[in-house]
Amino acid sequence: MLVTEIIRKKRDGDILSKEELEFIVNGYVKGEIPDYQMSAFLMAIYFRGMSKEELVEFTMLMAKSGKMVDLGSIEGVKVDKHSSGGIADTTTLVLIPLAASCGVKVAKMSGRGLSHTGGTIDKLESIPGFKTELSEDEFIEAVNKVGAAIVGQSESLVPADKKIYALRDVTATVESIPLIASSIMSKKIAAGSDKIILDVKFGKGAFMKEYEKAKELANTMVEIGTLVGRETIAYVTDMNQPLGLMIGNALEVIEAIEVLKGRGHEDLKNLCIEFASEMMIMAGVEKEKKLAQERAIESIEKGYALEKFKEIIKNQGGNPEIVDNYSLLPQAKYTYELKCDEDMYIKDIDALKLGLCALKLGAGRQRKEDKIDYAVGIQLFGKIGHKIAKNMPFAKIYANDEKRLEEAISDVKTAFEFSKRPVPKRKVIFAKITKDNVFEF
Amino acid sequence: MLVTEIIRKKRDGDILSKEELEFIVNGYVKGEIPDYQMSAFLMAIYFRGMSKEELVEFTMLMAKSGKMVDLGSIEGVKVDKHSSGGIADTTTLVLIPLAASCGVKVAKMSGRGLSHTGGTIDKLESIPGFKTELSEDEFIEAVNKVGAAIVGQSESLVPADKKIYALRDVTATVESIPLIASSIMSKKIAAGSDKIILDVKFGKGAFMKEYEKAKELANTMVEIGTLVGRETIAYVTDMNQPLGLMIGNALEVIEAIEVLKGRGHEDLKNLCIEFASEMMIMAGVEKEKKLAQERAIESIEKGYALEKFKEIIKNQGGNPEIVDNYSLLPQAKYTYELKCDEDMYIKDIDALKLGLCALKLGAGRQRKEDKIDYAVGIQLFGKIGHKIAKNMPFAKIYANDEKRLEEAISDVKTAFEFSKRPVPKRKVIFAKITKDNVFEF
Repeated sequence: MLVTEIIRKKRDGDILSKEELEFIVNGYVKGEIPDYQMSAFLMAIYFRGMSKEELVEFTMLMAKSGKMVDLGSIEGVKVDKHSSGGIADTTTLVLIPLAASCGVKVAKMSGRGLSHTGGTIDKLESIPGFKTELSEDEFIEAVNKVGAAIVGQSESLVPADKKIYALRDVTATVESIPLIASSIMSKKIAAGSDKIILDVKFGKGAFMKEYEKAKELANTMVEIGTLVGRETIAYVTDMNQPLGLMIGNALEVIEAIEVLKGRGHEDLKNLCIEFASEMMIMAGVEKEKKLAQERAIESIEKGYALEKFKEIIKNQGGNPEIVDNYSLLPQAKYTYELKCDEDMYIKDIDALKLGLCALKLGAGRQRKEDKIDYAVGIQLFGKIGHKIAKNMPFAKIYANDEKRLEEAISDVKTAFEFSKRPVPKRKVIFAKITKDNVFEF
Repeated sequence: MLVTEIIRKKRDGDILSKEELEFIVNGYVKGEIPDYQMSAFLMAIYFRGMSKEELVEFTMLMAKSGKMVDLGSIEGVKVDKHSSGGIADTTTLVLIPLAASCGVKVAKMSGRGLSHTGGTIDKLESIPGFKTELSEDEFIEAVNKVGAAIVGQSESLVPADKKIYALRDVTATVESIPLIASSIMSKKIAAGSDKIILDVKFGKGAFMKEYEKAKELANTMVEIGTLVGRETIAYVTDMNQPLGLMIGNALEVIEAIEVLKGRGHEDLKNLCIEFASEMMIMAGVEKEKKLAQERAIESIEKGYALEKFKEIIKNQGGNPEIVDNYSLLPQAKYTYELKCDEDMYIKDIDALKLGLCALKLGAGRQRKEDKIDYAVGIQLFGKIGHKIAKNMPFAKIYANDEKRLEEAISDVKTAFEFSKRPVPKRKVIFAKITKDNVFEF
């Protein structure tokens, strides 16, 4: 088989056979096919896309390029959740104890923060003692013991995706829906869960700026999941403004606990209840959506979900007392409140600007090797449509460096727009996609 | 400047600035930009094309990447001729002495054979003693002395094109009209002539299979030439069947001499007269096309052109006696005539099949390092529409190896189709393209 012929076929819009895809993906991973042929191939995919059959084959080749996690020794249907990345999006931290407290087994592999979006593993590591690196046996044992565990993605997972992603990053071939979809799904498939729930964000703060593109990505991933026999559903949700009110690692842990205590912002809480109830249905724990939703609400109201979070923390070596005493979490040296001079309605909040601001404060990594400052971040006091009274804060900055604090003050200001007249609130969920239907809200 | 951003711009169909093109082309030549980014960029060009401004900039960057030949010390307007490559196409060998005998100065840099198409330099090297490697001074002196010289393309010409072409070859980005056009034109511009006449072949035996694509390529090259101030005209000619009757190096030298003696196939002869007369007009040697044509015909009839060929051969160290004694040229050990069992008209001749067959006989290089066998090849006894009488040959094979001869016999047979009924002849010239007009015939 000739690599050039395979590139040419893709370039000309022909469908590649299983063998041809195998040849190019496996050859690339082994180092037999050079970067310059792979990058031309990826650019051809950017323009020509992939057929359903090609997508499934390509995804499975990446998934199988490394270790495939076997969760067989965990009883029941394992449901995984993935978010395409957002700002003030601590859904996973709420959802995992919530779903587990409702009887869903969750064996969650999570990523670290990427660019301006936060990562669940970084957030958890702000909890003193919390271990995110477990062996596969420890991981499975942890799920069997308390119903849920959260670990960082193993290095031995999907080496093909890692190598291809690194190349895409430097050859302007990141923004391709089939390539994004197969990259995400290969990781989910290798991570071993039976079913998958996806949260695809769109808007200023998301990697996908346009709603239609996000819907297409969501749909493509549902197709892949369905075709490989892993039931997948996807939500398309707004990321023009932040989802919750906290941006930063320890701050988002606090926000997660607040939601589990029945407080926190309603947008974040409602999304977590929606996802938890879907996970119950997928896992077969509940049959009716309404009952599942009620069970999730009850689990929060009665404190089961919070208790589950404490169990998970303790089980992974963390200090569960943080749940009742936030001062045990990393604290920032400086704080600053931005206030309104008069009564005002929040008209717009630019999620990307706030994400980048938190990144500059030290909440994320500008380079791979950067260390994260868990204490820093930004707290909001309302979302679009919320009224801020005269002399009351609309945002609070947590910093460990005076110069960065100064910068953040001016950055955060430019992320907000106000109006003297009332502004309508915005919805969060725009679409839900299953293998058979697209529901738009 | 970021390479990824330049690739992204091209990928998204934006127009690149002069500075951006400079950055990527010069950076690539210097080795600062890796192959994998260049190949993604080339694939993006394959899909997005280039604007006229980009094309001119890209072409000139390649031309200027190495030595720019200065023909200023040759008096008069220098006209270069280029063919996109054909089978039994020995036009250049006829045209150069013919045009020179009519007063046109020709400083010709030629290439070697590529794949199944012959190369002028290889053909000339079948003449005992003929030197195709001259220094720039020797080259200019040779043109000044006898009016024409033909040398191999200097190694120091267009290094950017060489490096980019090698990459295109292994990344399925060869078949892009702007990339082909800029590659050819960068070489012609660096080679220093004032004006350029192009012969773009289309059909089975050409690199461009479709007429429309060949016309587009011709048009693109005329545009580039015009915009950089080197008047360029282009012909689009048929390469479905071979142009002349001889395929192979020494055989094509013989065919060129036959044409210069007023014999040879009319298609080849007429094309040479057409090109020679255009070159006279472009060089300002003649003002009217008709007079120029008459002068070319007269030059053949009176033997001036043949005499000029002898002068050129002698001037470059070759033995001019070959003109009168073909046995001084390399001779094949074996010959074989393919004959017709009954009276037949040639219905079709597949130029590609014959080109590949000559290649297998040893007339070309399958790999860069292969040595050429100058003696081998195929002789035809007519083109489409020609009648072959019973027991008369339609082809003759010249070989130096019995096994290869056997193979060639069956290959050549499959390249021919016959008909009992008369078949019309086919035209050669399909279009002539100048900066202002497209004439289709």
